[in-house]
Amino acid sequence: MATFIDIHHGMTGITADQLAAAHRADLAIEAEEHVHFKQAWADPESGTVYCLSEAPSKEAVQRIHERAGHLADEIHHVPITV
Amino acid sequence: MATFIDIHHGMTGITADQLAAAHRADLAIEAEEHVHFKQAWADPESGTVYCLSEAPSKEAVQRIHERAGHLADEIHHVPITV
Repeated sequence: MATFIDIHHGMTGITADQLAAAHRADLAIEAEEHVHFKQAWADPESGTVYCLSEAPSKEAVQRIHERAGHLADEIHHVPITV
Repeated sequence: MATFIDIHHGMTGITADQLAAAHRADLAIEAEEHVHFKQAWADPESGTVYCLSEAPSKEAVQRIHERAGHLADEIHHVPITV
């Protein structure tokens, strides 16, 4: 398993409820790709959402996000953590 | 206090030791601005570092990063977390 940060743009005005609903949609199906979305943060002003996940690959992260209805714009493998 | 994600570009090839040293440099002085850097992630391939902090303001985050020798390229307030 590896750690990923993915980024969604164009989410200006996103609310706490919308972020929670999107996160729940990921959690509901993530096990099918052996992904786990650990946390997400949103900046409604710039319209940016950051998701932190553990997953077997970038593609697995994107498949869950796609099926949940919110493709990521960027997915970065972050092998180094402190 | 608020939550921030800041991003550093141009860090291609950063190692675990370098990330740990940079993080220690922040931790050593962060209290002077009432900032706490909670976690950081690095993608040596794209040269991107992401830092998660709690701080009174964007400017306080930047002052610590600047004094520690690594200005952030972007700092985002992320008021929504799941």
